[in-house]
Amino acid sequence: MAKRILIGEPLTSEKLDEQLLPKKMALPIFASDALSSVAYAPQELLMILLIGGTALLTLSPWVAAAVVILLVVVVLSYRQLIKAYPSGGGDYEVASKNLGEVPGVVVAAALLVDYVLTVAVSVASGVDNIISALPELNPFRVEIAVGFVILIVIVNLRGVREASSVFAIPTYLFIGSVGIMIVVGLGRAVLGDVPEASSAAYGVQAESLTQAALILLVLRAFSSGCSALTGVEAVSNGVPAFRKPKIRNAQTTLTLMGGIAIALFVGLTLLALLSGVHYAENPCNLIGFDCTLPQPSLMAQVAAATFGMGSIPFFIIQAATACVLLLAANTAFNGFPLLGAVLARDGYAPKALNTRGDRLVYSNGMVILGIVAIGVLIVYQANLTTLIQLYIIGVFVSFSLGQIGMVRHWRRTLAGLRALSPEAARQQSARYERRSAITGLWINSLGASLTVLVLLIVTITKFTHGAWLVFIAIPILATLMLGVNRYYRDVEHEIRMDDDVHFGSSGDVAIILVNRLQKPVMKAIDYALAAKHDKTLAVHVAITEEDAAGLQKEWAAHDMPIPLVIIESPYRTYTSPVTTFIKSYREKHGSAVVTVYLPQFIVGHWWESILHNRRSRRLAQQLMLVHGVSITLVPWLLDSSELIYGRRSRPLPGQQRGGQPVAEVPAHRGKAPNSPAS
Amino acid sequence: MAKRILIGEPLTSEKLDEQLLPKKMALPIFASDALSSVAYAPQELLMILLIGGTALLTLSPWVAAAVVILLVVVVLSYRQLIKAYPSGGGDYEVASKNLGEVPGVVVAAALLVDYVLTVAVSVASGVDNIISALPELNPFRVEIAVGFVILIVIVNLRGVREASSVFAIPTYLFIGSVGIMIVVGLGRAVLGDVPEASSAAYGVQAESLTQAALILLVLRAFSSGCSALTGVEAVSNGVPAFRKPKIRNAQTTLTLMGGIAIALFVGLTLLALLSGVHYAENPCNLIGFDCTLPQPSLMAQVAAATFGMGSIPFFIIQAATACVLLLAANTAFNGFPLLGAVLARDGYAPKALNTRGDRLVYSNGMVILGIVAIGVLIVYQANLTTLIQLYIIGVFVSFSLGQIGMVRHWRRTLAGLRALSPEAARQQSARYERRSAITGLWINSLGASLTVLVLLIVTITKFTHGAWLVFIAIPILATLMLGVNRYYRDVEHEIRMDDDVHFGSSGDVAIILVNRLQKPVMKAIDYALAAKHDKTLAVHVAITEEDAAGLQKEWAAHDMPIPLVIIESPYRTYTSPVTTFIKSYREKHGSAVVTVYLPQFIVGHWWESILHNRRSRRLAQQLMLVHGVSITLVPWLLDSSELIYGRRSRPLPGQQRGGQPVAEVPAHRGKAPNSPAS
Repeated sequence: MAKRILIGEPLTSEKLDEQLLPKKMALPIFASDALSSVAYAPQELLMILLIGGTALLTLSPWVAAAVVILLVVVVLSYRQLIKAYPSGGGDYEVASKNLGEVPGVVVAAALLVDYVLTVAVSVASGVDNIISALPELNPFRVEIAVGFVILIVIVNLRGVREASSVFAIPTYLFIGSVGIMIVVGLGRAVLGDVPEASSAAYGVQAESLTQAALILLVLRAFSSGCSALTGVEAVSNGVPAFRKPKIRNAQTTLTLMGGIAIALFVGLTLLALLSGVHYAENPCNLIGFDCTLPQPSLMAQVAAATFGMGSIPFFIIQAATACVLLLAANTAFNGFPLLGAVLARDGYAPKALNTRGDRLVYSNGMVILGIVAIGVLIVYQANLTTLIQLYIIGVFVSFSLGQIGMVRHWRRTLAGLRALSPEAARQQSARYERRSAITGLWINSLGASLTVLVLLIVTITKFTHGAWLVFIAIPILATLMLGVNRYYRDVEHEIRMDDDVHFGSSGDVAIILVNRLQKPVMKAIDYALAAKHDKTLAVHVAITEEDAAGLQKEWAAHDMPIPLVIIESPYRTYTSPVTTFIKSYREKHGSAVVTVYLPQFIVGHWWESILHNRRSRRLAQQLMLVHGVSITLVPWLLDSSELIYGRRSRPLPGQQRGGQPVAEVPAHRGKAPNSPAS
Repeated sequence: MAKRILIGEPLTSEKLDEQLLPKKMALPIFASDALSSVAYAPQELLMILLIGGTALLTLSPWVAAAVVILLVVVVLSYRQLIKAYPSGGGDYEVASKNLGEVPGVVVAAALLVDYVLTVAVSVASGVDNIISALPELNPFRVEIAVGFVILIVIVNLRGVREASSVFAIPTYLFIGSVGIMIVVGLGRAVLGDVPEASSAAYGVQAESLTQAALILLVLRAFSSGCSALTGVEAVSNGVPAFRKPKIRNAQTTLTLMGGIAIALFVGLTLLALLSGVHYAENPCNLIGFDCTLPQPSLMAQVAAATFGMGSIPFFIIQAATACVLLLAANTAFNGFPLLGAVLARDGYAPKALNTRGDRLVYSNGMVILGIVAIGVLIVYQANLTTLIQLYIIGVFVSFSLGQIGMVRHWRRTLAGLRALSPEAARQQSARYERRSAITGLWINSLGASLTVLVLLIVTITKFTHGAWLVFIAIPILATLMLGVNRYYRDVEHEIRMDDDVHFGSSGDVAIILVNRLQKPVMKAIDYALAAKHDKTLAVHVAITEEDAAGLQKEWAAHDMPIPLVIIESPYRTYTSPVTTFIKSYREKHGSAVVTVYLPQFIVGHWWESILHNRRSRRLAQQLMLVHGVSITLVPWLLDSSELIYGRRSRPLPGQQRGGQPVAEVPAHRGKAPNSPAS
């Protein structure tokens, strides 16, 4: 019941198509990650520069420009990728198809790690922005963050489209309100009324830097600014979720997203510089600031400077920022399970990740992501600046390998076109294809060079600041995936057909375990009789002699059509007497196929399963280890389950009960056609 | 593997008898709870009196004497109970047999709550004593406590007797070392060299009390002192675990235990008074004590006063005290699962609690107790004084109801004897029985009056100090138990045989779900053929058309003896096409018993089960909801499981592979006798 209320009624698979996303819904779903990055990327960029003192802030336009150029190149590169690989495998598919298994798996591991960090960073930043507006919530930072992750998991378990309609409005509100803030703020500046941030007056305790340290610091600022690029790949991983024409729609969404992200990133950075925001890595380095208080986020400071602290637009911007950051976390809950399903399909992850749940979403992946993200948030105490250190390495690993893969892809395409006959090559379509491949090659070569360069910079500047953990996690994950793949391959090999396989088992006996003479057992006997086994035996394990004697009496009284065998159990156990009996039976009667019938209760509520079937499940597990045994589970629907599954195997209390066979088929009383032997 | 190393190899049920306890082993197992209480009972008694100032300590001998009298009466009462009800149900059995269902369930609930608190209090006190010897461990109080509970669970999952041999030595060491300390300490006092405790010099900030408050305080001290009585009932619950003659051995153990407990309790209280131990509820009330430090336990102070702080005997006593307290926690791990099993047998708890695990212990009960106790320790931060407030209420609820039940029992016995004919009544045995019943009646009446009185005192003095929680927990638990009982009874009624039940299902068809043509599927087909169903069909769900076409080709190539049916799956799902197929098949061919064969992987390592069987389990669950369906699981042992279970269903790689039927019985190639239809 609780599950139903939280997650919604199960959807039939026919609904899958309706769940596909139109563009205006896909934008909030897939673009929120990239867009929301502007809530922290300018802040982290300026923060790192400020370590070197306020003078360094003059470098920030150049650093921001480098980030924008990179963003343009990456968006263009991914438009190519979407066209070439629209199946939603994204960088993983590109890398594994063009570069081989190991690079593919490394990309997958990097992406999985980054999905986790997307959730952690976005939620931490979202909570930061909430606390900037409501500082009294500061003591509950971690609790709020964890609560949000749980909320997102529940919303996502309800299914893709419903989740998007819940979240579409805030994204547009974010774009709109931050856009207006930038226009208003810059407008005021142009008119000479420059907004002033609350931290503009604070002095800054700066470290004195050598030239080399200065260069490193600028590169670090660039690395942190690159967090604006995270989420660009989300669209390429989500192409199958788009409506037709999928490729065009995905490309358009990607370009739109890139444009908006650049506008917001540039606008916010400018406005923060103009209004004199001083955001410090260690708030105690701000002279004049009481560093026991939470430091307001850059977004909050800019909003307060533009519209006034505590004004209605200020609260709208903070709310929209927090919401879009949570939506970004939500993006990961779309991407992670999809990637997990692709990995499962390819045999690199447990197959359960490729199973859609009741609501047609990959529930297992969502739950795993939620648990890991909560763990990370608790360990890092939802601290944005610490988390950012681990972030974007995974993204750039997958960017780089994806782009290199794309370069390889276009070269192969061109090689294929060169191999065509001169006649075929002159055709319109071939010429078009050639031109588009050359364009792709140029764009992706540029993308590959830049992203590899940035990966190097990011690695150098972040490794000692905590990112080493990511460099441990990615290889471990990749190794696990390769191990899973080897395992599945071994099993595949083990169970592969060969010429020696043939039929011929014989000697068929059915055993019905009888504890007491009750309806579920009668149904099992009925089914066993219907299957007409060569022999059909009832077996009772005598835990107490009285029970055994009582059963024998009842057996005779009901004129049961199959013989009853009583077996001893000196130690009041159940399983071992049965296995012993079956083994000795098979020895005596020659190798036989033994089918053990076990009644199984089907219950309506989760808590009922605590109260039932434990012994029977244990017994089934043990018996399946015995040679020649197979287990037949005969379901018995308890009333509770019938109320829920809307199905009745026997009449309601009010109805007439007579003449009703246990297995609900036309009744003919008396012995079954096969006379059971023993 | 990890499970095996921690818990040991599984025991065959034949070992159960060898696991029974001789007296010298039963004493440490069942008496440690009662004996270890002396580690905290005197401390808590004196601590409460000290709230009223040092002058009140002069009352302590009288309070202690009251506790001793109560202890004597309770021990005598339980000797009667063991004689009358030696089956191990203890107070629960007595109350339910003599007073009815609800009192019985209330006793059970009270005992379960108290087992949890026994673990929590004993471990907290044990950690206290460790910290008294090694104060630098103070910051890790909770972690150490939790670690000990986990350790105890693991040791207990290994089985009763091994657990006792691990722990027997420390109990005797505790009795011996504390005994020697009392003799040495009192000896020194007699010789005029009175030991002086480190806290003797501290002044005490006392509350000024009204006369009523004074009386209440004395009663509260008595209540806390009564914690010395906890664990007395352990022996009566554990009688079946004793060697024969069970009753005599249990009674002797109980008496021995009572004697030792009284000696230690009296000795320690005396020594603490003589050496001037000042142990305060709030250590900041001790004038001269730095209350940021942990307060050394009474045991530690007395040991330090007698033998010198940091001397070897001091460390021995602290170590023995900590060990015996952990053993007391261990007692609960014997009692709780046994009571759980009894409750399960009677239908008041999930039947799984009555299932012995691999090592012939009730593993489920142990794990539950461990988890709940850890939760309590974390919530109460392993604080002894807070935990003691919740303690002993459960014990006295069960004492009282048990004793009242015993009174009823003896009256019934006497009534039965009075109803005898005068001749029979004059016989030796009847006269002996009558005398023993009268003795019992007297003793248990005294026991009942005293324990009810103490229960009242304990309730009044502890309710507002946190014990209200227990008064909520016991009714909730009792209600749950009654609910479980009603549920089992309803199910019982639902599945009871009635005259309308008869056989007659017909129309037997076997369906083998085929994904790809692999050995496990071939084995399933082989078994289905051996069972000679009326019809045998292979069914393939076409997730992709290529797979389906490929399978059809293979099917023809292998000259398969049964027809293959391909069913469509427009939404790439698995379950719903199968259920639809079965439903429409049954409609077309008349009501039929449908047996669905599912190959099931049997794996060797726990992690392999993450990688297998998920879909097949899901499918089985769904199919069991379809009318007329039963599920036959055909096991396929993977190599990994064969290595572990030492059983091979196919030849090793090195062996000859030819002529080996899948189901390992004499082969005859070709079609099975029943020609399958479609």
